[in-house]
Amino acid sequence: MIYADNAATTNMSEAAIQTMTTLLREAWGNPSSLYEHGQRAKEILEKAREDVAAVIGADPAEITFTSGGSEADNQAIRTAAALGRKQGKFHIISTAFEHHAVLHTLEALKKEGFDITLLDVHENGIVLPEQVEEAIRDDTCLVTVMTANNEIGTIQPIREIGAVCRRRGVLFHTDAVQAVGHIPLDVNADNIDMLSASAHKFHGPKGVGFLYAKKGVRLANLIEGGAQERGKRAGTENVPGIAAMAAALTEIHGKMEANTAHLTAMRDRLIDGLSQIPHAALNGDAKKRLPGNVNFCFEGIEGESLLLLLDDKGICASSGSACTSGSLDPSHVLLAIGRVHDVAHGSLRLSIAEDVTEEEIDYIVTSVREVVEYLRGFSPIWRDLMAGKKEFIL
Amino acid sequence: MIYADNAATTNMSEAAIQTMTTLLREAWGNPSSLYEHGQRAKEILEKAREDVAAVIGADPAEITFTSGGSEADNQAIRTAAALGRKQGKFHIISTAFEHHAVLHTLEALKKEGFDITLLDVHENGIVLPEQVEEAIRDDTCLVTVMTANNEIGTIQPIREIGAVCRRRGVLFHTDAVQAVGHIPLDVNADNIDMLSASAHKFHGPKGVGFLYAKKGVRLANLIEGGAQERGKRAGTENVPGIAAMAAALTEIHGKMEANTAHLTAMRDRLIDGLSQIPHAALNGDAKKRLPGNVNFCFEGIEGESLLLLLDDKGICASSGSACTSGSLDPSHVLLAIGRVHDVAHGSLRLSIAEDVTEEEIDYIVTSVREVVEYLRGFSPIWRDLMAGKKEFIL
Repeated sequence: MIYADNAATTNMSEAAIQTMTTLLREAWGNPSSLYEHGQRAKEILEKAREDVAAVIGADPAEITFTSGGSEADNQAIRTAAALGRKQGKFHIISTAFEHHAVLHTLEALKKEGFDITLLDVHENGIVLPEQVEEAIRDDTCLVTVMTANNEIGTIQPIREIGAVCRRRGVLFHTDAVQAVGHIPLDVNADNIDMLSASAHKFHGPKGVGFLYAKKGVRLANLIEGGAQERGKRAGTENVPGIAAMAAALTEIHGKMEANTAHLTAMRDRLIDGLSQIPHAALNGDAKKRLPGNVNFCFEGIEGESLLLLLDDKGICASSGSACTSGSLDPSHVLLAIGRVHDVAHGSLRLSIAEDVTEEEIDYIVTSVREVVEYLRGFSPIWRDLMAGKKEFIL
Repeated sequence: MIYADNAATTNMSEAAIQTMTTLLREAWGNPSSLYEHGQRAKEILEKAREDVAAVIGADPAEITFTSGGSEADNQAIRTAAALGRKQGKFHIISTAFEHHAVLHTLEALKKEGFDITLLDVHENGIVLPEQVEEAIRDDTCLVTVMTANNEIGTIQPIREIGAVCRRRGVLFHTDAVQAVGHIPLDVNADNIDMLSASAHKFHGPKGVGFLYAKKGVRLANLIEGGAQERGKRAGTENVPGIAAMAAALTEIHGKMEANTAHLTAMRDRLIDGLSQIPHAALNGDAKKRLPGNVNFCFEGIEGESLLLLLDDKGICASSGSACTSGSLDPSHVLLAIGRVHDVAHGSLRLSIAEDVTEEEIDYIVTSVREVVEYLRGFSPIWRDLMAGKKEFIL
């Protein structure tokens, strides 16, 4: 199996598995308990907080553990909305191609009276700081722009966007679920007020994530209850999962330079290979993208059939976000960068792993080419295109 | 170590650990992915849903997996509030001694305009169906009463309360976090519309729980985002954790009869033993309580010192909820059953495990007696009591 869907989820690192399985047996105490067994769990929890904080240049007290990236996104946006309500500021700026954890929360806020501006991301899938600057109003309470897109991998100029926000006194949140552990991030240098992350995107366990909130940003509770996480996130802490997340993050962060060099070379080889397929086009900027992300549209085919045939060849890939699979609508991300419906339906995301080999890349290229050709042989759209009854877009 | 704090958290069962560690390596695929590796994870997820549903007599489609009991409580109450808002019904009935996941959510709703009635739970820690009946108004949108209290273990007449609610057309939610796996529950026979549970209270992993919502009850989203869990709870599913929860629940449910017989005998032996200590009193009904729960007040001492000295003797216990540890306020549960502040401060909860032995029970009794006597030797309150300057309450 060649697993090329690391943007959907990753396998757990050996370090994370070892940490987790050890702690499931040894540190199952409740960190809120006074006795030693509980306090040992508490120590592990706080060590994990330090480790996670260190990776993004934060203070441990600025880290709140959550059940994942979606919860962190929801809590960050709800926090800004709560502050906005108090100050009479009901305007939020985001982009058209955020993750649904952001977009759906914004839709919910819209129903509650907020005014939402979704910025255009252009053909290359990148929003510009100037756009943010222009969109900011006196009643803007939040700018939320993802660090890297989950489908096309394009990296946003968050440091510059953060600088604009800081200058204009607006809170800045970034959904960094696809970025943490994969590209360098420093919450202070990058001018970030809130940042969301998810462990299973960087070889940690599922069901764990974290929210960074800069000192002074008073989090609104999404889950009310006990006094865990300084009273900001109720529920007994998942210590084994949290420690496994810290282990995975520390490990991948330590290897970032080598990973990036290798992944970028492999990514570009994959892009070069797939670019040879006729009427195919890369989605998103070719360079300003995550080192492991490749996303193509192939004219005349359906993404779903492509995936199933690649699966037969032992290649795990996706047409876009796993979170929306099952939906017949084309990807909102591809529509946002200007792909038309027909073309957006024929998309393929390949998000490669750090240990991918050149041989695997070449096998993916050959397989995709074969499958695309095979499917086009059956495609009525392709027949029309070839017969000149329909015009090629790509 | 004698671990007698199973109401705070439990160790993971061997079945749960095995399931989890196996699946961390084998089923890390994203259940939303189309390829086989993802679909295998999906199958495991749906099998877990069936197993969990079976234990409480629900349909699998009525189970939504969450990050734990607190999240489930929040979502259930927010669901009823959302429905109430639509219908112009802004009254919620609960009890004074619910878990903070319920009480704090209700406090938040109060600020949003809801009217909250908290019913008295009497000296024995049990609310009566008649009280619920009397409290229901035309604008009542929810009754939420816990199945068993987390501190004093008293079991509420939820079937009868549910019947009242059904008759009066009011939604009924029960926080069954302490009850699931420990006492028989059947959502249909018990007239339950929504039920919250947490895996780590029945030897499953932390960070996992579930919310039962009867068919027809349209859940409001707490976490917005992807289309997971029928669009009602976003975030990549924690398949290994969910499957481990199902394994733990299936196992403990299968042993319920034997567990109950043994635990009840051990609990009553513990209650008998501790009752011999002068000026001590059991909190909550002696019989209508969880088979593993014992909770005492000892006059003239501080609970925290008691716990630390018991820890020295290898006994893990708590003064009440782990979720509020660190707080100097006396337990709201003990105040609700009429304990005065001074006495409530000297509380001890012993929640014993299914494999506890008679010898361990006797050791706990001896140890508690020794520690209580020792602490009273230093206590100015105890000196005043003995000198007749203060009157004994217990």
